[in-house]
This record gives sequence, structure tokens and C-alpha cells, in this order.
Amino acid sequence: MTTINCKEIAANIRKGLGEKVSSLTEKYGEKPFLEIVQVGAHPSSVSYVKSIERTCDNMGVNHRLSIYDENISEEELVKVIETLNSDDSVHGVIIQYPLPQHLDQDRIANTLSPDKDVDCVNSTNLGKLFMGVKGIVPCTPKGMMRILEESGVDLVGKEVVVVGNGRTVGKPISQLLLHSGATVTVCHVQTKDLKKHVKEADVVICAAGKAGLVTGDMVKDGVVVVDAAINVIGDKIVGDADFEEVSKKASLITPVPGGVGTTTNAMLIENLLELFVSHKEK
Amino acid sequence: MTTINCKEIAANIRKGLGEKVSSLTEKYGEKPFLEIVQVGAHPSSVSYVKSIERTCDNMGVNHRLSIYDENISEEELVKVIETLNSDDSVHGVIIQYPLPQHLDQDRIANTLSPDKDVDCVNSTNLGKLFMGVKGIVPCTPKGMMRILEESGVDLVGKEVVVVGNGRTVGKPISQLLLHSGATVTVCHVQTKDLKKHVKEADVVICAAGKAGLVTGDMVKDGVVVVDAAINVIGDKIVGDADFEEVSKKASLITPVPGGVGTTTNAMLIENLLELFVSHKEK
Repeated sequence: MTTINCKEIAANIRKGLGEKVSSLTEKYGEKPFLEIVQVGAHPSSVSYVKSIERTCDNMGVNHRLSIYDENISEEELVKVIETLNSDDSVHGVIIQYPLPQHLDQDRIANTLSPDKDVDCVNSTNLGKLFMGVKGIVPCTPKGMMRILEESGVDLVGKEVVVVGNGRTVGKPISQLLLHSGATVTVCHVQTKDLKKHVKEADVVICAAGKAGLVTGDMVKDGVVVVDAAINVIGDKIVGDADFEEVSKKASLITPVPGGVGTTTNAMLIENLLELFVSHKEK
Repeated sequence: MTTINCKEIAANIRKGLGEKVSSLTEKYGEKPFLEIVQVGAHPSSVSYVKSIERTCDNMGVNHRLSIYDENISEEELVKVIETLNSDDSVHGVIIQYPLPQHLDQDRIANTLSPDKDVDCVNSTNLGKLFMGVKGIVPCTPKGMMRILEESGVDLVGKEVVVVGNGRTVGKPISQLLLHSGATVTVCHVQTKDLKKHVKEADVVICAAGKAGLVTGDMVKDGVVVVDAAINVIGDKIVGDADFEEVSKKASLITPVPGGVGTTTNAMLIENLLELFVSHKEK
């Protein structure tokens, strides 16, 4: 068994990106600029925002965090987004989810211009991803695909089971895997025999958010496991796979923590640079 | 074995829609209006257009066929679509695909306003479908879901195999099936062991466009087969499933011809009415 060294993969990606930021900054005479929109102070947002700011600083990317009152009206937030859409100095916008309950998340996501949608939350960008049209890809699944690629996993004709059909990971990665030539089965909470499917899989993607869902007896020998889940159990963070047992049978497995999550911010910068270049070349 | 009477299902849907057209026409003092955009004279377009016009006439829906020269430039066609977008008397637009090769199909599809996109070709509408947000659904997969529903097939927890990952049928129906609670495996040309997957399926969706791809020995007893393929073999039209052999084992199966295709135009009218009402209630 080999635990995939995601931290090293992420460090290498960041190194390349840092160089790219320098050369693009020189080329266009301007640094890429990321706007972070936060509403209220959801604990998961606060820690994620800090890590984004740190990554931006390390990469030489300009950024601004704008925090809005948790009682902001939907119309006000729509106006905020529209102002950012038309602001030429802003190249990418990431909205922190979840938003407070009184706000329509879909409406806010679809107000953001597809040209500044650095985490691919806008329906237009998601529709392109769905149809296999080149464009922005959500950061977490993009990082997962990169981890598979860097680990030398050829997906063509592989049997892949995606556990979880959520918007952030399960749905987009299923499409990315299909576009890479894998045969993909999507399992979810209504799946009757998860074990039967997982047992047949060459690659298992964990994206359900349920600790201990994938156990050692469910996987076949030599399986590749990419675990995107982040479950907080007491003072520990674990994925969906029972790492200790599953890793005994896996040929490759990502750890949690220190796995998939380590690549997410690098993908955010990669997407920002893509939007920055499109903006400049328009 | 029961061959699903798709013609009867379609006739019942059309009956309901005809009544709905009447009541909406009375309510809004205007008939729904469908614009059909055809470029050149691709044989499959010509026959499909005729069937759309006939359906519109039977339903009491206004329609106009605009045929453009096959050498029309992309910029000219974009202008045509933009004019239709801003024309308040047009409630839905269907563009006949395939377009001539020199035209960028994605650009044309994404020029069409999501609010007039009666066959769900625009990325914004496809992105909503992908994320499970209520909205327009492409006509053929919408009809297939209706056939399953009218046939009393409960999809929750069912094992469904979709054969084919194309944009028109395979991709959208996979998402609709997932949203209905099915466990979905998408197989395609790179799938190594199609038989193994089909053999386990409670429901098989044929959308590959390859005659004889699904044979009798590949399916399990009692399987439900919905065959959306239209393959022309000599002077016969057949689906992907070997109907004679597969039907011996299937509990329910759609015929080809006279199957899925019979519902497509009814779904087009259903979508048009949805867009018409949204337009009027705006």
C-alpha cells in the first residue's frame, strides 16, 4: 500500500503556479486579484478563508476579503455581486458557502458572472463541465483528478465507483471521470447494495461525508481510494473510508487530513489564473 | 413481457397538453409561439421539422419555420438568435441539429436565451439540470422518464445502467435517474465489460446508437428496457437492443420505432408551455 503524498503533489503544483503568477504579472503589468465574499461568520468559512488568504500571499496573488452582515438581504448581496462583475480590477470571486438560510444560494451563484466564477458554482460553467466543454472546474474535484493523474492512474476503461452525489464533489467528479474514459457508477444514500458496487471498483471516490462508510471488507485488493470527505469525530478529522483497514488492501489511498484538501487552494489559484488570462486576452 | 405502449402514453400526454394550450391561450389572450430554426437541409432535420409542425398544429400552438442558407456565417446566425431572444412574440426556439460543420454548435446553443431554450441546449439550463434545480429538461430524456413513470416503474434504489454517454440522451437521463433515487452506472465505448453491468441492471437505458449492442444473453429476467436509439439498418429502423431476444426476458420494453420517439414532440410542447407561462408571469 502507498499513501499518496498529496502534500508533495500540492507543493509541486503551487511551485509551478507561483512561477506562472510572476510571468503573468510581468506580462500584463498587473497582479491577478481574487475577491473573497463572506456573509456572516460560519466557522468553516472562517478557517477556509484564512487558508485562501495564506495561499494567495504565498503565490503573489492580490486578494480582498469582504465580510457582509449575516442579515444582508438577498437584493443587497445581488448588488454586491453585480458590482464585482463589472469591476475590471477583480478577476475572480469566491463566495463562501453555506450562505445564511434566508439567501437563495442558487440565485447568488447564478448572479456571479461565469467569467469570474473561480470555483465553478454558476450554472453556465457547470453546464459546460457537464457537457465536457473546456472551462472552469470546481476546485476540489479538479484537485482529485490531478492527484489521480500525478499518481499515474490511467482511468480509461477503469471501473470507478463514486460514493456520494453531492453538488460540490460527487456530481462534478463523476463527469470528469467519465470524460477521462472511466465507467462510472454513482452510489448514494438510496443505493441498496453499496458493498457490491465498491467491491467491483478499481477506483473508489469517497464523497458522502459519513465516517466509516467504506470499510476494509468492502474493497478489493489493489483498489485506489481518493477520499474527499472531511468528517469531524470528536477531536479527530477522518474521511469516509476506514483508513486503517482500507489501506491494508489499497494500492493507493489518500489520507485524511492532509489529502485531497491540500490541493484545493492550489486549484483555486489555477482557476484564477485561467480567468485572469481570459480577461486580459478578451 | 409487455411492450410499453408509448403511442398511447404520448396520445394521453398530448390530450392533456391540448387542453392546457386552450386554457392558457384564453388566460393570456395569445397563443404560445414556437420558432423552428433550420440551417440547410439535413435529411434528419427535414423529417423532424415536419413532425414538429404537425404536432404544433394539432395542439393549437403557433409556429414558424425559418430556413437559413447552409453557408450562413456564424455571426449572421448569432444575430438571428439574438433577434429571436429579444422578440417578445416568440416564446420558444428550437434549433435543428446538427448544424453545418463551419458553425460552432456550442456558441449557437449558448447564444439562445435560457428563457426560450425549449430543448435545453443552453449551458445554463443544462447546468441547472445537472445540479437538480427545477427547470427545462431536454425533450427525449424527459419523455423517457415519463414513459417509466406511466409504466409504474419506481426508480428509488433501482440499479440502472445507461448505455451511452452522449449529450442528447445519455448524459441528461443519467442525472434525471439519479435525481429519482436510482443507482446509475454510465457505460460507453470505453467500458470494458458491458455485459457484466447490463446483467445486474433492473433498468437498462439504450442510448448508444449501435444496433444489436444489447443482446438477450446480456440482460436479466424481468429487466425494464427503454431504448432511445434510432439506427437505420437497410430499410428498417431498430434500437440498440435486439428487441426479439431481449423482449423474451424483459418485463417491460419500449419498441423501436414507435417507442421513445413518440413522446419527444409532446415534451417539446410541454416545455414550450412552461416557457410561455414563465414569460407571461414575469
